[in-house]
Amino acid sequence: MSSALELIALPGIPMVRAGDDIAALIIAALGSRELSAGDVIVVAQKIISKAEGRTVDLATVTPSVQAEKLAAEVGKDPRLVEVVLSESTCVVRSRPNLIIVQHRLGFVMANAGVDQSNVAPADGVHRVLLLPRDPDGSAERLRRALQQRYGVEIGVIISDSFGRAWRRGTCGIAIGAAGLPSLIDLRGRPDLFGRTLEVSIIGFADEIAAAASLLQGQAAEAQPIVLVRGLSWTAPAAAAADLVRPIEEDLFR
Amino acid sequence: MSSALELIALPGIPMVRAGDDIAALIIAALGSRELSAGDVIVVAQKIISKAEGRTVDLATVTPSVQAEKLAAEVGKDPRLVEVVLSESTCVVRSRPNLIIVQHRLGFVMANAGVDQSNVAPADGVHRVLLLPRDPDGSAERLRRALQQRYGVEIGVIISDSFGRAWRRGTCGIAIGAAGLPSLIDLRGRPDLFGRTLEVSIIGFADEIAAAASLLQGQAAEAQPIVLVRGLSWTAPAAAAADLVRPIEEDLFR
Repeated sequence: MSSALELIALPGIPMVRAGDDIAALIIAALGSRELSAGDVIVVAQKIISKAEGRTVDLATVTPSVQAEKLAAEVGKDPRLVEVVLSESTCVVRSRPNLIIVQHRLGFVMANAGVDQSNVAPADGVHRVLLLPRDPDGSAERLRRALQQRYGVEIGVIISDSFGRAWRRGTCGIAIGAAGLPSLIDLRGRPDLFGRTLEVSIIGFADEIAAAASLLQGQAAEAQPIVLVRGLSWTAPAAAAADLVRPIEEDLFR
Repeated sequence: MSSALELIALPGIPMVRAGDDIAALIIAALGSRELSAGDVIVVAQKIISKAEGRTVDLATVTPSVQAEKLAAEVGKDPRLVEVVLSESTCVVRSRPNLIIVQHRLGFVMANAGVDQSNVAPADGVHRVLLLPRDPDGSAERLRRALQQRYGVEIGVIISDSFGRAWRRGTCGIAIGAAGLPSLIDLRGRPDLFGRTLEVSIIGFADEIAAAASLLQGQAAEAQPIVLVRGLSWTAPAAAAADLVRPIEEDLFR
């Protein structure tokens, strides 16, 4: 097990626009710094979504009857609610000013991750930002580009901030991952007295994302990319989709 | 905002026994290293509980009728279930091999945190470990002892690993905190384009605990104490009790 970790927010990351190459941007921000085997790059979802052009201009959205009805119930813009519903498989809970859905990728989250903050405003245009289409795929493409440049095996995480059912405040989590195990399963390993550990599947990628979030902050474009050094793992790499609890295990829907 | 963090697992922490002085143990493990203002010490719940003598010998436990009934339903030792219930205000969900309760401190968690692993076995004695009686109080006592020794303002977190409703795997969280804000409320701060951030209360102490968990591992006594350097905050200190979502806000009970 590692005995020390270092987290470094990469400096000077510019505003990201649709079509920007995030790998090139990371390589530029790393400057003369090389990546080492086992390094993990954590990238805030927001800049991946922007680079992938995942913005919607609400002026182009026509809300459905269902969206109009839910919008009236929660007190939100019906066009925004339409976008939220279009990104979701179902509404899990709704209350005034709150919509919790199951996102099409399985995440149980507020507003399907549709975000109005930190999107550059333009004249009369009200744009919102959606989650990346396939965050595990985005992480994998980024991992390949960085490995090609640096010639070492690294991990990449696409992070977001989620609320929790029974805890106040948000925590960083991994919505995409590549090159590292999202979960580490210690079941069957002996504890310090040689007995078998009972409950011990660790949300490894989520814990890394939470750590990086301490540097990313919430206005996540100031320091959206964090380099994590010193981690170690032996389990095979697995995508962040593994972190989504299957619905048949869900006791709280 | 910080631009770099360093996490160091303190080396050579011995097995902890009831009555041990955790502050003295941290000071010994720090050796010639001084603490600086803003440093945060994260201590795994398990060694706090052990030092506080929070063990129960199951041979001394007589299960109630309610415990017998629930034990039959979930397939666990009725004496263990009795201890779980004695630490809880209510059972939130139960299934074969699973009891999720509201702990007397408000945490919604499996088995009320009652743990059978990593407790030293003795002849014919089957001991289990409970959460500290008052983890915020434990953190505050530790903070005072360390500040007295080092003469600087530091933070202390008592960490545990919790499961999540809709995510697989556990994540480190803060069950006790002192000297730092458990939540950081960014509401009302402008985003990068001068608009107001919508949802932005950060589970600061939970994110720190998750980061430390990457070094603590799950067999948490090997590296139970982690020093975190480089964090910064301006909000006033507030206990980890603030991280518990009040029941009137709970949509998933």
